[in-house]
Amino acid sequence: MIQSPLYTIRLRLGILCLTLILSVLSFSCNKKEHTEAKTEIKNQKPTLSLSTSEANEIKKLLSTNDVLKLSFDQHKEKADKAIINGIEVPTPKDPGGGYTHEKHKRNYGEMYAAGIAYIITEDTKYSEFVTNMLLEYAKMYPSLPLHPKSKENHPAGKLFWQGLNESVWLVNSIQAYNLVSDAISQENKTIIEENVFKKVAEFISVDSKKTFNKIHNHGTWAVAGVGMTGYVLKDQDMVDRALYGSNKDKETGFLKQIEMLFSPEGYYSEGPYYQRYAMMPFMLFAQAIQINQPDLKIFEYRNQLLGKAVTTVLQLTDENGAFFPFNDALKEKNYLTSELIFASNIAYAYYKDSSLLPITLAHEKVSISGAGLEVAKALKNFTPKAYEKKPLLITDGKNGSDGGLALLRMSNGKKDKKLTTVFKFASQGMGHGHFDRLSLFLYDGKQEILQDYGAARFLNVESKQGGRYLPENKTWAKQTIAHNTVTVDETSQFGANVKASSKVSPQLLFSNLKDSNLQIVSAKEENAYQGIIMQRTLALVKNEATERPPFIIDVYAITAKETHQYDLNFMYQGQVMETNFEYLKENTLSPLGVKNGYQHLWKLAEGKSNQNFATLTWLNQNSFYSISSLIDKESNMVFSKLGANDPNFNLRDDASYMLREKNKKNHVFVNVIEPHGNFDPKLESVQNPHSDIKNIELIYSDDEYTIVQIVFKNDEHYTLTIVNQEHDPHKQHKTTIDNQIYQWTGNYNLKTN
Amino acid sequence: MIQSPLYTIRLRLGILCLTLILSVLSFSCNKKEHTEAKTEIKNQKPTLSLSTSEANEIKKLLSTNDVLKLSFDQHKEKADKAIINGIEVPTPKDPGGGYTHEKHKRNYGEMYAAGIAYIITEDTKYSEFVTNMLLEYAKMYPSLPLHPKSKENHPAGKLFWQGLNESVWLVNSIQAYNLVSDAISQENKTIIEENVFKKVAEFISVDSKKTFNKIHNHGTWAVAGVGMTGYVLKDQDMVDRALYGSNKDKETGFLKQIEMLFSPEGYYSEGPYYQRYAMMPFMLFAQAIQINQPDLKIFEYRNQLLGKAVTTVLQLTDENGAFFPFNDALKEKNYLTSELIFASNIAYAYYKDSSLLPITLAHEKVSISGAGLEVAKALKNFTPKAYEKKPLLITDGKNGSDGGLALLRMSNGKKDKKLTTVFKFASQGMGHGHFDRLSLFLYDGKQEILQDYGAARFLNVESKQGGRYLPENKTWAKQTIAHNTVTVDETSQFGANVKASSKVSPQLLFSNLKDSNLQIVSAKEENAYQGIIMQRTLALVKNEATERPPFIIDVYAITAKETHQYDLNFMYQGQVMETNFEYLKENTLSPLGVKNGYQHLWKLAEGKSNQNFATLTWLNQNSFYSISSLIDKESNMVFSKLGANDPNFNLRDDASYMLREKNKKNHVFVNVIEPHGNFDPKLESVQNPHSDIKNIELIYSDDEYTIVQIVFKNDEHYTLTIVNQEHDPHKQHKTTIDNQIYQWTGNYNLKTN
Repeated sequence: MIQSPLYTIRLRLGILCLTLILSVLSFSCNKKEHTEAKTEIKNQKPTLSLSTSEANEIKKLLSTNDVLKLSFDQHKEKADKAIINGIEVPTPKDPGGGYTHEKHKRNYGEMYAAGIAYIITEDTKYSEFVTNMLLEYAKMYPSLPLHPKSKENHPAGKLFWQGLNESVWLVNSIQAYNLVSDAISQENKTIIEENVFKKVAEFISVDSKKTFNKIHNHGTWAVAGVGMTGYVLKDQDMVDRALYGSNKDKETGFLKQIEMLFSPEGYYSEGPYYQRYAMMPFMLFAQAIQINQPDLKIFEYRNQLLGKAVTTVLQLTDENGAFFPFNDALKEKNYLTSELIFASNIAYAYYKDSSLLPITLAHEKVSISGAGLEVAKALKNFTPKAYEKKPLLITDGKNGSDGGLALLRMSNGKKDKKLTTVFKFASQGMGHGHFDRLSLFLYDGKQEILQDYGAARFLNVESKQGGRYLPENKTWAKQTIAHNTVTVDETSQFGANVKASSKVSPQLLFSNLKDSNLQIVSAKEENAYQGIIMQRTLALVKNEATERPPFIIDVYAITAKETHQYDLNFMYQGQVMETNFEYLKENTLSPLGVKNGYQHLWKLAEGKSNQNFATLTWLNQNSFYSISSLIDKESNMVFSKLGANDPNFNLRDDASYMLREKNKKNHVFVNVIEPHGNFDPKLESVQNPHSDIKNIELIYSDDEYTIVQIVFKNDEHYTLTIVNQEHDPHKQHKTTIDNQIYQWTGNYNLKTN
Repeated sequence: MIQSPLYTIRLRLGILCLTLILSVLSFSCNKKEHTEAKTEIKNQKPTLSLSTSEANEIKKLLSTNDVLKLSFDQHKEKADKAIINGIEVPTPKDPGGGYTHEKHKRNYGEMYAAGIAYIITEDTKYSEFVTNMLLEYAKMYPSLPLHPKSKENHPAGKLFWQGLNESVWLVNSIQAYNLVSDAISQENKTIIEENVFKKVAEFISVDSKKTFNKIHNHGTWAVAGVGMTGYVLKDQDMVDRALYGSNKDKETGFLKQIEMLFSPEGYYSEGPYYQRYAMMPFMLFAQAIQINQPDLKIFEYRNQLLGKAVTTVLQLTDENGAFFPFNDALKEKNYLTSELIFASNIAYAYYKDSSLLPITLAHEKVSISGAGLEVAKALKNFTPKAYEKKPLLITDGKNGSDGGLALLRMSNGKKDKKLTTVFKFASQGMGHGHFDRLSLFLYDGKQEILQDYGAARFLNVESKQGGRYLPENKTWAKQTIAHNTVTVDETSQFGANVKASSKVSPQLLFSNLKDSNLQIVSAKEENAYQGIIMQRTLALVKNEATERPPFIIDVYAITAKETHQYDLNFMYQGQVMETNFEYLKENTLSPLGVKNGYQHLWKLAEGKSNQNFATLTWLNQNSFYSISSLIDKESNMVFSKLGANDPNFNLRDDASYMLREKNKKNHVFVNVIEPHGNFDPKLESVQNPHSDIKNIELIYSDDEYTIVQIVFKNDEHYTLTIVNQEHDPHKQHKTTIDNQIYQWTGNYNLKTN
């Protein structure tokens, strides 16, 4: 199928040329630069990302456009260094992190850099470097067996232990080859195309057909590599298989992936950390499709889904630009990552969405491509401003019906800083998902206040199990107790079973993020624990009449037929300042439990109280925060600290504060989370170090309604009424409780005083 | 003494006028601006910090000088707000942090702000605010008893629980009064001067004579307040008592304080955190002296000691600008503090030291004073650059013979970033000192790598014992085990007895910080433990021939007649990555000991090894660090974590790694501390995650010499020879060990390969 007879190639070439001409005509309507590129093509070399005319323009602009120069110089420096170091194409041997693994990774990076250096400088030392390295691969690749360190049940590569890296190698190397191919002799071209690119593409698309046809980011890298190779090799069959799946039936392949892997808002169910990675092949391949088959209108596909996906992943970041650590995520990863340079440049070039420019400015570099060129030119006249993070409801699932995420964002009263509450009621997110339904995360400006652990992994750190996910990722980070949600009977949601969890999703009940003083979201989870229905409602509230910063009302209602133990955990970050209850610290520390993550928590202290609410106040980076929670005399307040049963110091030592309710059937947790003051070390002054809560009351709770009342010390009253069923924003409600009439329209009502 | 008859006042006024004229003549040689000020004086009002002509110049510059405008606006805003809120002078009642305490603090700040606002705008609403508030104080102060919350054995105030605050009140209020006095009726002036300033000055200088004559920062605030009041009230007797002590015998007072409280380099023995605070009255009073009695040449006194003191306190900061946390210090305090705005502005104005400008730029504001005006004008043409932090040896004690500090600083290879090792072999530093002799601190760029705890205190946080030093400050932070030095037999140096410790100091043996590839310091402590002599030598080493970052060789030699247990502790910051030895983690945690700080450490794990060196590698903010230590089979490597016996969550949960040697008499700890690699989350690449040490050997050790050899994996050898007695940089040494001849000149020798 891959080695077509010569006449087929010619025929295809003809068709391709025709397509190309049509493409140029079609494309010229939208995109002037690319039109020029096409019309200047001399040798009809296909373009993946950078045409000769664009390269010429970049060359001209280098002296006046700093970001372009800096970006190009980095490629050139890398290429120069690589040329000095010489070419080495070692026999594949080591697993991830090991020498040959890293070397083959470096190789494709260096080839790509040299390709860029060549097309801009036209210095043949760069094209020779790429050619010679590919010729080395040509010698080795055809006879390579599967990688010796490949693992059962995990798609293998040949150059690498896993097939994913092989696809990434192809995505990069085919671009490098495409950039320098003008300078390669026909003889060498044939060697390289036959012995390298066709073989790699065959391995990925035929030998590894299962992955190739997977609706999964590994599949995306695979189809992107093979599809881009198809364009360069002018093999439309290869391209079509990438676009429509091995059987070209559109049941798999790139288009199907776009359809299946994203929600209507462009959310990728593995979460933003993985979405960042996945966006690169999506956008690179889309760019190549747009250039070579513009009639496919790939960037318009599914209501401009790819553009939405880029915006969504950028919105799913905190004020440091770090991705919200949903699922298996490394917290240090942010939107400065190279994948998002490519993705945001391409998105800007095709959607002309200037809201992306603050991000591209923050990158401090652009991709050396047609898209990067457009960004560099736009940045020339761009007045720096912050990327606008908005309150956002993002649904999950291809139809948007598998729960989702809510980003509640409000100014925290400090310049350009927001209080951000993330509410996660999304689907499992495949194998990297955590059992964290109805969890919340809280950020104040750049600080994590209520945190999610992220993944237990030190990426590429050899001494930490070669940089792989650590055992504690499963035993702690994925478990429900690691998250700011309720764990029932010390077991994780779905018994920590991914299969079971993947079948069902939480449901959004109602939301309104449009009111400037109240953002509210309510979601329900009915399957995580058998016979238990959980509904959490988060409201971010600001009262313009007061100087009080925004605060959060958190109502977590549980309905069950049997009695259970409910542990509502808060992974707070900071130092305990005060509590309004007594607690007793332990003299020797033991783990809080024996399994499901509990075995990793050292129990530090436990408290009880006769009051009807418990307040914990802590200090984080000179700011004070409090959680005040409705309790009764039987409630336990438990302090613990991560690190037990951690033989290799793999875990951080995060702090945890838990509200424990034993022997309860139905139960409503009502919490108020207040940021309320700060310590100014310059002035040595302390403002509002105490919680302002005077009372919390659950006024009413049944299947229909939940009504809670929060009273502040200055007698501000907030009465929040939540509708629990038959949600309709226009429905009128009326109920009488203790002779008081409650009357409102819609799914909720917040009454102040 | 205070209420002189009228003719005395007139006489004094005559003398003062004469002095003023002479002052102007003398001063005009150095300082043009102040000359102008003086010649324009209309009503002969004395100036403390801002003359009318300077105020006029500031007024003119407000529209063009941003920093001046911003600085002024902050005062004006504060004053405007204060005027809206109205005047309240409550009867003193509450202790530190309480309402009346904070209110009286706010009052003097608001009066000072209003004073500034008045002299620049000439709007009488500001002068009236100050006048009316002072009139309120005039009604209350004369009949005030000692503060009800004053404490035995602690100098009391009347407005505040302690006398120190009273002095600070006076320093600020007298300036406010001075700024607005033109606008006050003679009648009110008399009321205010008689019933407020004379009374407060009398309370501070007569009733609280003991503190007033103390050679201590409390004394400095007292004499500054009283001396400045003397200038404003034209009471030279008051000034003289401030300058020369109550008995005017120069045995106490301001000049004596300058002489006794600083080392020749301007180090203040309580440490930089307290020095920062003390510099304010030193510099404010000096400025007033320079303006009113320029013939005293106060800024030249003791070889320009005050200038040196400002530079020294600024050098004693890390790359965040935070003061090295010697003794009782809050780590969040940095050189942006208001005290250092005043001090650095005055230092710049009088010494014209442009190296201070980066600091004044970082402040983003200037004091509204003659000195601040000069800084603001200088900043107008100043090209921003970083404040240069230098390698520095700073002696302690008034003669420089009481030990000291060494700041070893070398580029860490990253732009503008330094590796900084602080070696502390200073005197006790009075009551706020810690038992931390021969301790080291390590910083890499802005990161603490080996930390000092600082103080256990949450300044002004009411819920933490009213913001006072917490019990754990004594039981943990001051104890030797809290520091990166050796604790003998689980007891602190000097049995944690301040009196004993204050009598003796460690001794500097030799140092050389001038070599670009080797900075070395050696110091000795003979008194901390009876019968035990400790000598620590720290060398910061860079080999230009390699890409290796600078590393530290740490040789801690102990000589004793009896056997002891030696615990060398390292309070490392970060996450354990790997060790080259096995350790066993505890299943339940117990405190490491029962007293002297050990009771606060949870013992996490203990290791042993058959190798001759133990390596711990940890990750801090994406960088890798290792400590490799010479050990034998009996050595214990102990991991612990702070937080035991801490009933109120007062302590942080810092990590500790300890080398424990039991039953040793003489012993030499040899450690190599390497920063050696990093993790780049953008590129997902890891560089040099492993320690590079192949071997550590103690070649020789006796009373005369210590010779150690470090071998790296690439076979670089570093042989460090240390001379232990009769130090002389020119002396020739020769010794033969194992048939090998060691020959060198001076106190040390580092041989590479």
